[in-house]
Amino acid sequence: MTTTSTDGPRAARTSAVPAVPAPPPAGGPRVDVVALARLLDGRWAEQRRNARELALDPDMQKIEGLPLAEHRERAMHQLHLLLERGEPLRGFPKAVGGGADPGGNLAGFEELVVADPSLQIKAGVQWGLFGSAVANLGTAEQHARFLPGIMDLSVPGCFAMTEIGHGSDVAALGTTATYDPDTDEFVIHTPVTAARKEYIGNAAVHGIAAVVFAQLITRGVNHGVHAFYVPVREEDGVGGLRYCKGVDGADDGHKGGLNGVDNGRIWFDHVRVPRTNLLNRYGDVAPDGTYSSPIASPGRRFFTMLSTLVQGRVSLSGAAVAAAKMALAVAIRYGTERRQFTTADEHEEQVLLDYQQHQRRLLPLLARTYAAGFAHNELLERFHGVFSGEHDTDADRQDLETLAAAAKPVNTWLALETLQEAREACGGAGFISENRLTGLRADMDVYVTFEGDNNVLLQLVGKRLLTDYGKEMAQVDIAGAVRWVAERAADMTLHRTPLRRAAQSIRDSGSRARSAGHLREAETQRELLEDRVEAMVEQIALALRPARKAPPAEAAALFNSHQHQLIEAARAHAELLQWEAFTAALGQVRDAGTREVLSTLRDLYGLTLIEKNLAWYLTEGRISAQRARTVTSYVDRLLARLRPHARLLVDAFGYAPEHLRATIATGVEQERQAEARDHARRRRASGQEPVSEKSLR
Amino acid sequence: MTTTSTDGPRAARTSAVPAVPAPPPAGGPRVDVVALARLLDGRWAEQRRNARELALDPDMQKIEGLPLAEHRERAMHQLHLLLERGEPLRGFPKAVGGGADPGGNLAGFEELVVADPSLQIKAGVQWGLFGSAVANLGTAEQHARFLPGIMDLSVPGCFAMTEIGHGSDVAALGTTATYDPDTDEFVIHTPVTAARKEYIGNAAVHGIAAVVFAQLITRGVNHGVHAFYVPVREEDGVGGLRYCKGVDGADDGHKGGLNGVDNGRIWFDHVRVPRTNLLNRYGDVAPDGTYSSPIASPGRRFFTMLSTLVQGRVSLSGAAVAAAKMALAVAIRYGTERRQFTTADEHEEQVLLDYQQHQRRLLPLLARTYAAGFAHNELLERFHGVFSGEHDTDADRQDLETLAAAAKPVNTWLALETLQEAREACGGAGFISENRLTGLRADMDVYVTFEGDNNVLLQLVGKRLLTDYGKEMAQVDIAGAVRWVAERAADMTLHRTPLRRAAQSIRDSGSRARSAGHLREAETQRELLEDRVEAMVEQIALALRPARKAPPAEAAALFNSHQHQLIEAARAHAELLQWEAFTAALGQVRDAGTREVLSTLRDLYGLTLIEKNLAWYLTEGRISAQRARTVTSYVDRLLARLRPHARLLVDAFGYAPEHLRATIATGVEQERQAEARDHARRRRASGQEPVSEKSLR
Repeated sequence: MTTTSTDGPRAARTSAVPAVPAPPPAGGPRVDVVALARLLDGRWAEQRRNARELALDPDMQKIEGLPLAEHRERAMHQLHLLLERGEPLRGFPKAVGGGADPGGNLAGFEELVVADPSLQIKAGVQWGLFGSAVANLGTAEQHARFLPGIMDLSVPGCFAMTEIGHGSDVAALGTTATYDPDTDEFVIHTPVTAARKEYIGNAAVHGIAAVVFAQLITRGVNHGVHAFYVPVREEDGVGGLRYCKGVDGADDGHKGGLNGVDNGRIWFDHVRVPRTNLLNRYGDVAPDGTYSSPIASPGRRFFTMLSTLVQGRVSLSGAAVAAAKMALAVAIRYGTERRQFTTADEHEEQVLLDYQQHQRRLLPLLARTYAAGFAHNELLERFHGVFSGEHDTDADRQDLETLAAAAKPVNTWLALETLQEAREACGGAGFISENRLTGLRADMDVYVTFEGDNNVLLQLVGKRLLTDYGKEMAQVDIAGAVRWVAERAADMTLHRTPLRRAAQSIRDSGSRARSAGHLREAETQRELLEDRVEAMVEQIALALRPARKAPPAEAAALFNSHQHQLIEAARAHAELLQWEAFTAALGQVRDAGTREVLSTLRDLYGLTLIEKNLAWYLTEGRISAQRARTVTSYVDRLLARLRPHARLLVDAFGYAPEHLRATIATGVEQERQAEARDHARRRRASGQEPVSEKSLR
Repeated sequence: MTTTSTDGPRAARTSAVPAVPAPPPAGGPRVDVVALARLLDGRWAEQRRNARELALDPDMQKIEGLPLAEHRERAMHQLHLLLERGEPLRGFPKAVGGGADPGGNLAGFEELVVADPSLQIKAGVQWGLFGSAVANLGTAEQHARFLPGIMDLSVPGCFAMTEIGHGSDVAALGTTATYDPDTDEFVIHTPVTAARKEYIGNAAVHGIAAVVFAQLITRGVNHGVHAFYVPVREEDGVGGLRYCKGVDGADDGHKGGLNGVDNGRIWFDHVRVPRTNLLNRYGDVAPDGTYSSPIASPGRRFFTMLSTLVQGRVSLSGAAVAAAKMALAVAIRYGTERRQFTTADEHEEQVLLDYQQHQRRLLPLLARTYAAGFAHNELLERFHGVFSGEHDTDADRQDLETLAAAAKPVNTWLALETLQEAREACGGAGFISENRLTGLRADMDVYVTFEGDNNVLLQLVGKRLLTDYGKEMAQVDIAGAVRWVAERAADMTLHRTPLRRAAQSIRDSGSRARSAGHLREAETQRELLEDRVEAMVEQIALALRPARKAPPAEAAALFNSHQHQLIEAARAHAELLQWEAFTAALGQVRDAGTREVLSTLRDLYGLTLIEKNLAWYLTEGRISAQRARTVTSYVDRLLARLRPHARLLVDAFGYAPEHLRATIATGVEQERQAEARDHARRRRASGQEPVSEKSLR
């Protein structure tokens, strides 16, 4: 269907020859690319590299513009190829033949965006959601009964949680599972249109079973949302599939991206499943209809069940980082080769990345991507700790959830922003599918919505920050608490007056260089970033105090009037975590040149965060106007200092031209320029070159 | 190819029934939607409405996921349908049967995004670029010779300007057109790969002729870029087309969007065309090879030729506004119907747009879109003035060019930002193609790149601002200039010290309400916005002074170190123009309720601009920290005040559900909720409702 231009992705489609390394910049510090690549890939570097190697197989690669039905079949076929390599089994329990390596499993999974995000998400639906739900919410007997078919793909399945009427608010799902003691069965039912399962991967075509989330009702009591294993399609006797009795569905059709995944709607008309199909690790029903659960509180039980599904968020965070890295690898390589307009030199046009605006567009995103990558590595370690059982306390799980809820939003938005800036920075070439940026962006778009809408997740993080703040307060006695609030209030008054700023102005006075140097100190950056999170949370907590005693409507209105601020505080917290991860990673760098360049990149990340929120620092009296004025020029200096290392810093991501498969990142631009330069030289030498009219005047 | 869900776009695909108007909010001011719609549609409201009506024809509508070849043929067919209605001829000269109505022509053209952006751009290639180049760069004889075939579509053609090696830098194109007096012909030639024409619409399949931009060389002198009419394909004798002798090309294949347009590469190997195929309005070659031009300066001649092509930028600005309006109409309608999570009311979930964060996401974009729409109407009037000959001085043309260069970037970015925020605000539904947001965004993506890259255009605007600043300086004598600079410098020192701020602090002291009220005054907003543009330009001008006497490399480096600031100044200028257009439009509103709501919306636009740049206002001493602290809470108050009118404000855009063709904007969400509510009521009445486990504790 797709026609490729004759001088199309040649180098990209040949073979896995190693990338030609970029020449190191002359003078100044040198980056040790190999060591840096190792640091970036983290603990599961081998799994990452294996997955990238897999993506070199043309059968695993996305073809842009493929018709819907073909793309869906191709993705299904790719799942079988993936299975042949044993990749998807790494995360499952040893008892059923898995590798019991949750961290390594996700690391490899994340890298599948290199091949095709549809393949990644379809694999995620099958093994990560459908399979993990059985593994995490089911018991050993159920593992033995259901997992083999899921693992070997003989049972493609759905994770049927979201409904048309309820996406983010899972507790309010409308599907019911009512226990019938007469037949020892649950009756799965969709009472209204709004309760139809929606956007369900594998539902439109391939799914033959599903884990269905429904309100468990027995003996007239609703015990809240539980998961049920439900067959949805069966063989129709003529080589195809048909819906099981009582099941029906519809196709979501074409989407903005990820068209290799067959999303659809699915609903149930009194569909009966055996009682033992309730995935009963956290809640069970006896034959007589008695409900039991190891977790007494329905609220805690619900959140415990949902928390087992955190791996989706963790893996999207990592996939987003991988996509951002690919975008930067393409745009920065092109930006160091592409020339446009003459400036200083009359005969040689200027390389794009030598323009300040181009540096401004790409290098802060490079710094953020480094920070996001290091923070994601830490998140993945923590995920592995919990799911391998090595560090699996309640506190560990809660921390993991909060960290994932913070990382997934900022990283998925980073990916979209970076892919878009990269596409625009590559001009018209960025819009052609063979350069991959638009296709990747289209596929990644929904990552900001699924597995928890980004804004909803950030609000969760914000609430956690408020709770922690409350706990801190609870640890002191009543009199102390009053004093504590009073002190804090006084503190805030201090910030509201220009006192602190005045003091800072005096300290800074005269020397711009000194104040800029001061901002370069890691401790200053940390202090400013931490201070902002703490002060914002405190401001919100103090503002919300009247809510405790107000009528519900008033309390809700008060909370709502601080929703935006709370989400911004959560974002600031997520950014602080990334800055800290970047700084911690710096501590692991032995090579002096690499450390110097990475420190500058970390400073760029810290300073652009401060620059973005400069108005807050100024109004809250944390930075003087005089110091504030130095921030932007200091950022400009950092950009200029990083410019010579930009190419090596993206080379260290480990994506060679064969992984990127973007024609413009294969050196064609330089070849064309060399040809044009040779031609001009020959013309001049031959005396055929016409003189310009301008030069005659 | 595309499968549609069974309960898919029903209402959207039936017929042109009028939209059910939203109920007016209870109490407070009322918006007169009909009058407001008239104001928004501007002078050429009828043409806009006609074009929207046209888009109701299913044959004119985009089908998402159509294979490349089919989409291309469909778009070509749509061009013929458009021609049957006479639409595209409105802009051409009367002498060749056109309507000589450039403004009305563009207004209708802009609305074609409603049907399919591919149709719009393919029409733009044929009549707006290929046709306009002949109309504007050719003479009457050439009009008679070439225009009829272009107008009646018997000659589909290309606008062959951009090359692989040179997009934004048109002056540096590599294609040559060398005059051969022996045969009275030009020889069109592509000397190197980098000079191949690239991203050319109609080049891959349909084009049989092209206007080719090439360096005109005669008698050994290069007279710079000129345009030539060149046949590129001919009938192959077996019912198809083949390249003419010496012409070759390649297909750009699948793109990130606009796949109905057949972009490709095209290049020339010593292709000969008659001398009279040089479009010779601004430059001609006599049979003996003598070059002549009514414009002596090669630089001015080049810019005059390019300036005739400004209509592309004007129309993209308008198309972008239309797309932003559609996005908001979908997301705000959905946001006023969709409910999620209970807050104050235990039984009724809260409407999305009642959440502060949702208001923060959508309402400032609504304010920007209003401002952009009013500013675009002014731009279109000015375009009509120049191209109808009513106001066609050099100064008019220069102003038009600068205004278009300012409007196109900010409006095309607004469209992308709004489409993305709308898509995310609609959650998973926003990602399904039947709701149109992703498809529109994919198509609009390249609008930020073509007809002048947005960053390059803003830099042009910035240079114009600097030039105007220089002219202002040139009008005083040398001694005066020195004094003037000295005074300005003193002024800036004042701004750098906290003196001004201190004075303001005193004025503001005590009353937050007063300072917030002050920011609501239009004159305060104008002063702050103007001040920022002027001060930024001045700062850059003063910083660049040493460049005049510096060696070229040093001067270029100095300029480059202020490039980002210059582009930001240009953006601030564009935003100021939009604020002024919004304020001017307010003056035309008679109805008191409408004026009150629109004033609040204008304030929201002004205040969010000030909020975005608050750090600048603080560091430059234009706003005190005390006043700055009121900006955000004031914005929050404006959001709450506008919330009840949001639906009517998007209804006034004039896009009914039949135009939007987004299932979620047809009322299905409310229907589903009503069904669910009825069901719950019946269950409770019947006593079948299970009690919740939580309530038993």
